[in-house]
Amino acid sequence: MTTTQSMNEPLSSLTWGEDRLILLDQRLLPESIILLDLYTAEEVWDAIHTMKVRGAPAIGIAAAYGVVLGARRISHDQLDKDHTDNQQWLNQVLEICKYLATSRPTAVNLFWALDRMKDTATSLTQVGHNILELNQALLAEAQAIQLEDEEVCRLIGEHALPLFHDGMGVLTHCNAGGLATAKYGTALAPMYLAHERGIQLKVFADETRPVLQGARLTAFELQQAGIDVTLICDNMAGMVMSKGWIQAVIVGTDRVAANGDVCNKIGTYSVAVLAKAHGIPFYVACPLSTIDLNTETGQEIPIEERPAEEITEGFGKRTAPQDIKVFNPAFDVTPNEYVTAIITEKGIIQAPFKENLAAIFSK
Amino acid sequence: MTTTQSMNEPLSSLTWGEDRLILLDQRLLPESIILLDLYTAEEVWDAIHTMKVRGAPAIGIAAAYGVVLGARRISHDQLDKDHTDNQQWLNQVLEICKYLATSRPTAVNLFWALDRMKDTATSLTQVGHNILELNQALLAEAQAIQLEDEEVCRLIGEHALPLFHDGMGVLTHCNAGGLATAKYGTALAPMYLAHERGIQLKVFADETRPVLQGARLTAFELQQAGIDVTLICDNMAGMVMSKGWIQAVIVGTDRVAANGDVCNKIGTYSVAVLAKAHGIPFYVACPLSTIDLNTETGQEIPIEERPAEEITEGFGKRTAPQDIKVFNPAFDVTPNEYVTAIITEKGIIQAPFKENLAAIFSK
Repeated sequence: MTTTQSMNEPLSSLTWGEDRLILLDQRLLPESIILLDLYTAEEVWDAIHTMKVRGAPAIGIAAAYGVVLGARRISHDQLDKDHTDNQQWLNQVLEICKYLATSRPTAVNLFWALDRMKDTATSLTQVGHNILELNQALLAEAQAIQLEDEEVCRLIGEHALPLFHDGMGVLTHCNAGGLATAKYGTALAPMYLAHERGIQLKVFADETRPVLQGARLTAFELQQAGIDVTLICDNMAGMVMSKGWIQAVIVGTDRVAANGDVCNKIGTYSVAVLAKAHGIPFYVACPLSTIDLNTETGQEIPIEERPAEEITEGFGKRTAPQDIKVFNPAFDVTPNEYVTAIITEKGIIQAPFKENLAAIFSK
Repeated sequence: MTTTQSMNEPLSSLTWGEDRLILLDQRLLPESIILLDLYTAEEVWDAIHTMKVRGAPAIGIAAAYGVVLGARRISHDQLDKDHTDNQQWLNQVLEICKYLATSRPTAVNLFWALDRMKDTATSLTQVGHNILELNQALLAEAQAIQLEDEEVCRLIGEHALPLFHDGMGVLTHCNAGGLATAKYGTALAPMYLAHERGIQLKVFADETRPVLQGARLTAFELQQAGIDVTLICDNMAGMVMSKGWIQAVIVGTDRVAANGDVCNKIGTYSVAVLAKAHGIPFYVACPLSTIDLNTETGQEIPIEERPAEEITEGFGKRTAPQDIKVFNPAFDVTPNEYVTAIITEKGIIQAPFKENLAAIFSK
């Protein structure tokens, strides 16, 4: 079942709706704002698998609610009338978690969120709660995961906010916004907080070829929130900087290595080099869960190469010759010397990154 | 009227056809090879304005033929039957030149070619030729401009060729190829000459958003010629350089200022900054007619801003939110300190550009 959201409501990637997960279908943005009502674990699996929901944190949250929905079906359909067969319920819940874990292979938040749901179900079953209580506990855990993500993003925004001041021009690349998380996003968090507090930023959003997350998602969600945003092509970033319109760059990241090298959407490295050449600070915003101390440098991060068709016929028509050779890396690595600071929920980390990243984890 | 060119004929951006200009519609490449028959100055104005023909030299040549077509119409429609009112004819021709000069603002070749046509018309009118002779002289001048462009491009290629060696990776932006000129192109001329002489270059072509001249034209014409070319998105140039795959960048230009500042397709400046950061030489290839000693610095060059729709719905469907603010400059300026050398038909010019550019004109 689908509903169309009014343009005046604030946009949320997902919300819990009493008996269903209400999910914004991100594949259809920005042309259509379609909210999906998901009532079953199978519907959630499909939404993750087909990228109706994207962004690692948002995927984890969706999966947690998928467990809630699946568990409620058990209680109605498959258990004894008196709702006392807790072990039978737990086994079913663990099966649901296993099933949801197969929806996408890469995002670590998916497995992390499902582990939390499994732990909750297992420990509460052992202390003898009834099915109704267990279902309530699963919902509470899913909501906690969502709230914690929102809180982490808000904290990232709070830590970042002092770096921004009224009238400043800020450039971002790709989408690390509310649509990728529970709320606020990572790179976009300070923009939302600034807006709430009456600080006017002038945001420039790189369209982010080939998949145009900047045009379709970042420009869209900032526009919806009433934030001043201007869409540019990726190759205009240098010119916009040279005009003196940009005082800071801020981006999200898919993985930060122990030495502070930053892996993010393709094009981030070019933006970082341009920022340095113009004396503009280059900030990276992410939760601590994105920093991987087991990856020594960015050189170790495998870079996914994606199909040529994303470049040659990404938008409904062919825009390059048949059989043309294409190089289409999904990510690049920005060496730590281009990174001014990494902004986390625990504060701002600056060079030397190896020492300072290690230190923040032992806090 | 339109005709479809066979894929086996060599592709030419424009040819004169007795009573009309036959123009390859570059907006439809690479999917359709459509030749337009243009009979009036108004049709030529529209073809330049709507970028059916593009590339600074090709625009100049098209405009020159536009003057020919416009002048022929005067002789038929607006003059005395005896065709002797030369001054009236000249005034009309000067009006046509003024009109064609409004088709696009940035490329200096447009004004240069129109000045040549004006000079021809003016001087021959003064020595008392009749209208038929004057029209023939205009056609001869337009054809001379075209032939000279072909020769100039070949000479640019010859001067550039020693900068390239077998196995080298070369990155280019936009299209400064045969499609932008009469033949060979400027930036692509050394690639064609290298190919003719068995020197293998590995070319990377930026797709060049928003209009995708790199994907649609450069990748296409190099592929047609059998040259090794790989298509990338603009935001991948930095990554490709960091991998060590690029040993030289070469681009065309729409106008070079007296101090060596280079105005070219949007994104060129970003490429130049990236090249410098990676220690890669950045070459600019152009005829002397593109160098404007009357423009002191790049800051004086008017930068055309084009419609938002090129960015928001350029691929046949909308890819950005309705009413999103867009900045869409067609060009940017690369300051002379990023330019390793400017390659012209008279040789290679290096810094100090102000002195050396002035000197080449007095040769």
